[in-house]
Formats: sequence, structure tokens, C-alpha cells
Amino acid sequence: MSAARVVALSGGIGGAKLALGLYRVLPPSALTLIVNTGDDFEHLGLTICPDLDTTLYTLAGLANPELGWGRRDETWTFMKTLESLGAETWFRLGDADLALHVERTQRLKANQTLSAVIAAVAARFGIQATILPMSDDPVRTRVATAEGELAFQDYFVRLRCAPEVRSLHFAGAAAAAVAPGALAALAAPDLEAIILAPSNPYLSVDPILAVPGMRAALRARGVPVIAVTPLVGGQAIKGPTAKIMGELQLAPSPLTIARHYAGLIDGFVLDERDAALAPQFALPVHVTDTVMVELAGRERLAREVLHFASRIGRRA
Amino acid sequence: MSAARVVALSGGIGGAKLALGLYRVLPPSALTLIVNTGDDFEHLGLTICPDLDTTLYTLAGLANPELGWGRRDETWTFMKTLESLGAETWFRLGDADLALHVERTQRLKANQTLSAVIAAVAARFGIQATILPMSDDPVRTRVATAEGELAFQDYFVRLRCAPEVRSLHFAGAAAAAVAPGALAALAAPDLEAIILAPSNPYLSVDPILAVPGMRAALRARGVPVIAVTPLVGGQAIKGPTAKIMGELQLAPSPLTIARHYAGLIDGFVLDERDAALAPQFALPVHVTDTVMVELAGRERLAREVLHFASRIGRRA
Repeated sequence: MSAARVVALSGGIGGAKLALGLYRVLPPSALTLIVNTGDDFEHLGLTICPDLDTTLYTLAGLANPELGWGRRDETWTFMKTLESLGAETWFRLGDADLALHVERTQRLKANQTLSAVIAAVAARFGIQATILPMSDDPVRTRVATAEGELAFQDYFVRLRCAPEVRSLHFAGAAAAAVAPGALAALAAPDLEAIILAPSNPYLSVDPILAVPGMRAALRARGVPVIAVTPLVGGQAIKGPTAKIMGELQLAPSPLTIARHYAGLIDGFVLDERDAALAPQFALPVHVTDTVMVELAGRERLAREVLHFASRIGRRA
Repeated sequence: MSAARVVALSGGIGGAKLALGLYRVLPPSALTLIVNTGDDFEHLGLTICPDLDTTLYTLAGLANPELGWGRRDETWTFMKTLESLGAETWFRLGDADLALHVERTQRLKANQTLSAVIAAVAARFGIQATILPMSDDPVRTRVATAEGELAFQDYFVRLRCAPEVRSLHFAGAAAAAVAPGALAALAAPDLEAIILAPSNPYLSVDPILAVPGMRAALRARGVPVIAVTPLVGGQAIKGPTAKIMGELQLAPSPLTIARHYAGLIDGFVLDERDAALAPQFALPVHVTDTVMVELAGRERLAREVLHFASRIGRRA
């Protein structure tokens, strides 16, 4: 791919894994990540952006490999003390992680954009990729469940995805604008591929696509758009994708996901465990091992996805 | 003193030492502390109340004996990380300490009074004394210096009291009301003594006295009011009292302090190192060792102050 630019749309853990692979196989400044902010929320007076932070920590080499969120070498004195004060502790915040939330909240209150805040933090972390929120305007995923409508983190963390999902909506999305940096990256003359990371399509990618103008910007340059499956053998590697698909009366199959992205994507990366499904796809498919256990696996998948995109691009 | 009530007015470190002594020699629920909030400030989006917190930590046995502020067994991950993010770190906040600031800020935003917040924390800490802010309304000490007017913590912590003080004022004091609990404690029928702790009269006690109605409430019941000297041999044990007195063109003598409290106090506790000054006082003086090095010293001083007050009370 040389130094041509690549844009990836991503949520949290699964997306960040591929993002790290892309970051390591591309020239570092060639990668732009457009990250879901529908999971963001206000908690303990702080603005917390779980997917952006997972992305920052992952690319900076600071992520906690055991937890899948937060920072490595973390301490928990704040949380322990908060508990002793009788405060809400269902959302775990490590002492180091907290510094990012406090600093971000301060900067947002001082009227910096979320894009500017994330750029400043990424620079401090020495990250050369461009990490962008999908929008600088607040969008908040709401989950309609059998137990009533819930804020996303109430559903996801506090209730551990237990309530049955009936529908999702993205409050604020209609009035939100695509982050200017995201529009610029998608309009770059040397843009060569757009990748939908293997994040939950309904919880992590749909909020990004719900920002008015995002879909059009993704299609505007005619650059190949590739989705990487978040399902392997009917299950997500991590997270509730399959459970939610069942609750939404959708077959938990990569075919459902490809159909969900119909009109947006030009190719689909399917896991080899689902190779038998390949003939049923109406668009080019690349079959490979999509389970990124080790760093080498992430880099290999990143290389394959980029190669698949360039093949499609040449054909177009 | 049996179970009769005692009220002490106090600032931070020096005051909290005597407060702990009083707490230990009195029946625990007999003590009410009215604490300076002029040092309070908003920092990193948090409302921080240094004197109240020193008092809470001291009475709960959680105070950091080395630093003189903050908590023992503290960790500093938050601060270290904040520094790596390029944020302001001149005001040191430990990870455990931070939990109190976050929880307080949340409760204040939810329209709880500062009195209610402190009472809840004190209860969590198992403190049976009543700890009250002087007012539930914000009062902020401003320091006019040769380098311009400064917020108190800018002067005190960031600039380490280096600028020359010209005058002090207490922004918001004129519009503040004495905390209801403080009025109730000062009106209690079994109130037996009121003590001005050995805090800085200009920085720590004056803000309390600046709240309209406080002086009248202190004098209303005719209970003896005793000041304990914050100066020993012309110096403060800790802090800038003598330096500030010099800058305000005041002789750094306990006599100056007794005159400063004229009309308010009925007795003065003088350090034995200044015993030669005793004949010059226009009111009853008790001479003793006021340097509270160990816990036993705090308890002894507390007992002597209470005994001195009861002697004056009987005479009145």
C-alpha cells in the first residue's frame, strides 16, 4: 500500500486489535481511525469515551491485556476509596485511566473539541496515526430493552448486556456533524482503502454511520470499503454481537452482517471457519483466519485486508 | 467537662491537631468543629476543601503524618499520569484523596449542601464529632500581594507563600450565611466552651469570623471563648503566620494576636516559651507547652484548654 492513506471505522476492543495491526503494517501516519463515540457517557462528573480510550491505549502500547479495557500497570486506590465512601462503583476507573478522564473533561469544559482533546492526548502518547471521534458533537447510544430504555453503559457495563435488546437509537446523531478531520481523511486524494473493523455492527459501527454525511463521505471517493467479520462460527470473539442479533430476530451469520452493510461495502473478510458461506455472498469475499490472538495475527490480518482492498480497488 | 458541648473554630494542620486532642479527651459527640472554607477552590473540575479534609482525615486517623495534608498509605498514579498528559500538577492529589473530591463535587452538583456532604463523609469515616463548614455558601480567600491579587491556593501552594501579602479579603463572605449546624451548636444550652484553635488568625480564622452573624453567635451565649496561640517564640510551628504578620506591619507576637481577637475572646493560651509576655495581656492567660508533637501532647493541651475555659466560665 506504500504511503497511501487508509481509514478504518472502529469501536472498542475488537476494532482496536485490527487498528493496531494496521498501525504496525502501514507507515504510521498513513492510518486514520474514526472511532465510535456512542458509548461515551458522563459519570462521576467526567466525560468518559471508552472506545476512543481503548484505541489510544492500544496504539500507545498502554492497554491492559487482561481486562481488555483500561491501562496496564494500573492501580485502583481511587475506586477502592470511592467504594468506602458509598459512591457508585459499577464502572471501574483505574487511577491512571482517571487522569485522562479528568483532563479531557477539563479541556471540553474549556470549549476544546473532542477531536482536539484526543489529538493532544495521542500526541502525548507518541501515536502517529490520526485518531478521531466520529463527531465532536455528543451522540449517545440508547438501548430499548424489555426492561425499558437504558443508557448504553447502563446496559453494557452495569447490567452486563443481560436485558433483551428490542432496538437501538443514537440520541443526538441527527444533529451531529461528522468530525472535520474525518471528512478531510475521507476526502484525501491518496486515500486507498476504507475498512470497517470487526466491531459490533449494531453497537459500534452503526452509531458512526448514523452521523449525517458519514455514509456519503465513505462512498464519495469510490475507494474500496471492506468490512471484516465480527462473527466467527456464529459467535463474536468477545461481546454480545450474536446475543443482540438473536434478540433483534437476525440470524447470527456473517451473511446478515454483509447484508446490513449492503450499499456501503465492496468486499467482506470472512473467517475460515465460515468458509462454507462464501458462495452465498453477493460481493467479493476474502476468507482467512480473523481471530487475532497475538500481535503477529493482527499484523497478518491487517496485511491481508489491505491486499484484499487493493485487489478490489484495481478491479474497480 | 462531662458531656457538655464544646465548639472549636479551626483551619487546617495546626487546628486539626488540637481538634484531635479535643476529640479524644471529650465524649466524641460533644465536640463540634467549625472549619474554614476560605481555602476551598475549584481545580481540575473538582471542589476541593483542604481544611475540612485535613480535619476529616485527622479525626478518622487517616491523615498523612509526613506531608501534613492528604491521606496516609496514599498512591500517586493519577498525579503521575496527569503530569504525563501535560496537565497542571502543582496541587498534589493522591488517588484516595481524589475519591473524596470527586464524590463531594458530584454531591454538590446534585444540590446537596456542603454541610450535608461533610456529615455523610464523616459518618462513613466513623467520626462522631460534628464537622461543619463555616458556611454552605462559597467564600474564597483572596490575597492581595505585591505581585497582584491571587486566589488563595495560587498564593499558598503554587507560589509557596512567596509573594508579599498586602491585604486579605474573603470573596463571597458578605453574602454567605453561617452554616445552620454551626448556629445550632453555638446556641446549644449545654455549650460550655468555644475554642479558637492555633490556626493562622489571618488566613484560617478570619474567614470564619467574616461570615455575617458568626461573631454575634460566638458571643451570644456568654460561654468563654479561648484562643490558643499559633505563635511560639515569634514563629509559627508550621506555615506563614509570622511572615504574613511582618508583611502586614504587625509585630509577630501573641500579644498582637490577642489584640486581633479583642472583644471576641475571654482567655488566651500562651506558650511557655513566651511566658515573659504574660503580664502584658489584658485578659486571663494560661501558660503551657503548646507545641503538640505527639498525640499525648495534643490530649494534654486539649485538657488544659478545657480546664482553663471552665475556670473562666465559673468566674464569669
